[in-house]
Amino acid sequence: MSASNGTIRIGLVGIGKIARDQHLPVIGASPDYTLTAVASREGRYEGVPNYRTLAEMLAGQGDLDAVALCQPPQVRFSAALAAIEAGRHVFLEKPPGATLAEVGILIEAARARGVSLFASWHSRYAPGVEPARHWLSGRRIRSVAIAWMEDVRHWHPNQAWIWQAGGMGVFDPGINALSIATHILPPFFLTGATLSVPENRQAPIAADLHFTDADGTAIEAVFDWRQTGPQTWDIRVDTEDGLLVLSKGGSVLTIDGSEQPLPPEAEYRGLYDRFAALVRSGTSDVDLNPLIHVADAFLRGERRTVEAFTD
Amino acid sequence: MSASNGTIRIGLVGIGKIARDQHLPVIGASPDYTLTAVASREGRYEGVPNYRTLAEMLAGQGDLDAVALCQPPQVRFSAALAAIEAGRHVFLEKPPGATLAEVGILIEAARARGVSLFASWHSRYAPGVEPARHWLSGRRIRSVAIAWMEDVRHWHPNQAWIWQAGGMGVFDPGINALSIATHILPPFFLTGATLSVPENRQAPIAADLHFTDADGTAIEAVFDWRQTGPQTWDIRVDTEDGLLVLSKGGSVLTIDGSEQPLPPEAEYRGLYDRFAALVRSGTSDVDLNPLIHVADAFLRGERRTVEAFTD
Repeated sequence: MSASNGTIRIGLVGIGKIARDQHLPVIGASPDYTLTAVASREGRYEGVPNYRTLAEMLAGQGDLDAVALCQPPQVRFSAALAAIEAGRHVFLEKPPGATLAEVGILIEAARARGVSLFASWHSRYAPGVEPARHWLSGRRIRSVAIAWMEDVRHWHPNQAWIWQAGGMGVFDPGINALSIATHILPPFFLTGATLSVPENRQAPIAADLHFTDADGTAIEAVFDWRQTGPQTWDIRVDTEDGLLVLSKGGSVLTIDGSEQPLPPEAEYRGLYDRFAALVRSGTSDVDLNPLIHVADAFLRGERRTVEAFTD
Repeated sequence: MSASNGTIRIGLVGIGKIARDQHLPVIGASPDYTLTAVASREGRYEGVPNYRTLAEMLAGQGDLDAVALCQPPQVRFSAALAAIEAGRHVFLEKPPGATLAEVGILIEAARARGVSLFASWHSRYAPGVEPARHWLSGRRIRSVAIAWMEDVRHWHPNQAWIWQAGGMGVFDPGINALSIATHILPPFFLTGATLSVPENRQAPIAADLHFTDADGTAIEAVFDWRQTGPQTWDIRVDTEDGLLVLSKGGSVLTIDGSEQPLPPEAEYRGLYDRFAALVRSGTSDVDLNPLIHVADAFLRGERRTVEAFTD
C-alpha cells in the first residue's frame, strides 16, 4: 500500500510536545510520507482529519499505511497491537514499551501480520553517534565513563507519572545514553548498581551503574537528575588509540581533544528515513538492549532511600 | 567429541545441595553421559578427578565435551563464557544469569563457537506440565490464577545472598511458576505489580503480579514467602472447557476436579535428556521469558515496605 505519489500514508497518535516539536515537522518535510490523519484526545492539528482515538482513525482511514505512536509507554501496547493487527506499519517512540514482554508480543504480531515494526531510539541519530561507532569499531577499549546529569525540574516539571512505578525516573533520559552506548560499544552487561530513590517516590532520581563486557572492560555510568547549572550528557571511551568523547547528547564528538566536523542535528529525520527504508524492504528493527539494561538495573540494583523530591 | 562408548563426557561445577540431590545421581544413571570430573572450592565427589576451579578442570580434562554449572547466578557468567570459549557445551541451572544482558552475550558466544547452550527450567519437566500444555493448546482461556506460597525459613534458612540486591527474593521460587506459565500459556506481559520488601532487606518477601495477554485475559499471580503450614504451588487455568489445576509444583494435574494419571517425577532426568538431544543436534535452547517477567516486575512494580525479616 502507498499513496499514488509513492509516499507512505502515515497517521500520528498522541499530539504532545514531542509530536509538535519533532514528528509533525519532519513528516511534513519528508519526501517519503504523506501525513494523512492524527488521533489525540486533547490535541488538534490543522490540515488533516483529526480523530479522538486510534481505533476511530483506523476505521476512518482505510488507506493508511503506517502509524507513529507518541503516547507514553504505559498505554502504547494496545495501540501498537491494534495497528499491527489492522495491517499497519508501526513506528514507536522510545522506550518501545513499559515492559520487555509486551514488546516481544508486538515483534511476533508484526512478523505474523507481515508489517514493519520500528522501535526508535532517537539519540542514536545524533550527528556524532555514527562517526563514533565507526571510529571505535575494531579499536581496543580500555574503559568507558558515561555521565548523564540534568535538572529534572527543568526537563520534566510536575510530571507525576515519571516518578511512579513503571515511570523509570532518571532512566527516562538515561535510556538515551544506553541507546547510544549499546550502539557504539561491544555487548556489555550490568554487574552492580545503586539506585537512589526519594523517600516520597517510587522511581530513582539518580543511579550509579557498573557494567562490563566479555573482555572485562570497566563501563561506569552515572545518571543524576539533581544537576543544576550546566547539563551533562557525555560518553567518554578511553581506547589504546586515544580518548573519544561524545558530548552534548551525541551532538559533539572529540578525539584526543580535537573536535570532529559533524553534519547538523537531524535525529528525527534520521528516524523517519530509517522507518521508510524498513517499510519499503518489509523488515522490522526492534533492539531491546537499552530497555534490557534498564530492567537489569532495577532487577539487580541496590536501592537506597534519599531525601524527598518535590517539584 | 564424545567418549569411545558414545556418551557425552561431562564435568560438573559447584558441588552444593542441588548437585548432590539431582545432577550427580541423574548423570550417574543416564546412558547419555559419563561423569568425567567435578570442580568445587569446598565440595568433594568420589570416583572422578576433583578440581578447585573450572579453569583447572578445563586445563586438566582436554577431552571434556560439556559442563553443567550449578553455582549461584551471580558468578555463573564468567564460568559459562570460559567453558563456551573452550568449546564445551554448557548446561545452566536456573536462572540462566543475574541479568538478561549477560545471557544475551552467552547466546551469541555459543552460536559463534558452535556449541550447545541449555538454559534449564527444571519445573517445566514436572510430570503434569506437558499434559497441561497439551490439554490447554487451542482451548479458550478465561482467566489464570497462580499461587506460589512457601515458608522461606524452611527452604532458604540463613541464605543472606537471596535477600540482597540481585538475589531476587521470593522470585527465586516464583520464577519456577513463571517457567511453567510461560510454557503452557500464550505469551503474556505484566501490567502492574506490588512488591513487598522487608524494611531490613533489598529483595521482596512477597509479590502480587498482574499480567495479561494479547486477548486481555486476566492472569494473576501471588508469590509469598511467609506461608507456614501447608505449602502452595498451584496454577489454576479457567477455560471454556473446564478448570485445569496444576498443583504441588506441577506434580498433580486435575481437570474439573478429576485427577489425571501422570508418570513419576523425573525433572532432572528430563533436563539431561533434553541437553543430550541439544548436544547431538548441535542446537541451543535458551528461553529468557521467565527471567524477563521477573525483570519486568522489578522494573514496573510498586514497592511497599513491610516488617523486617529475620531468620
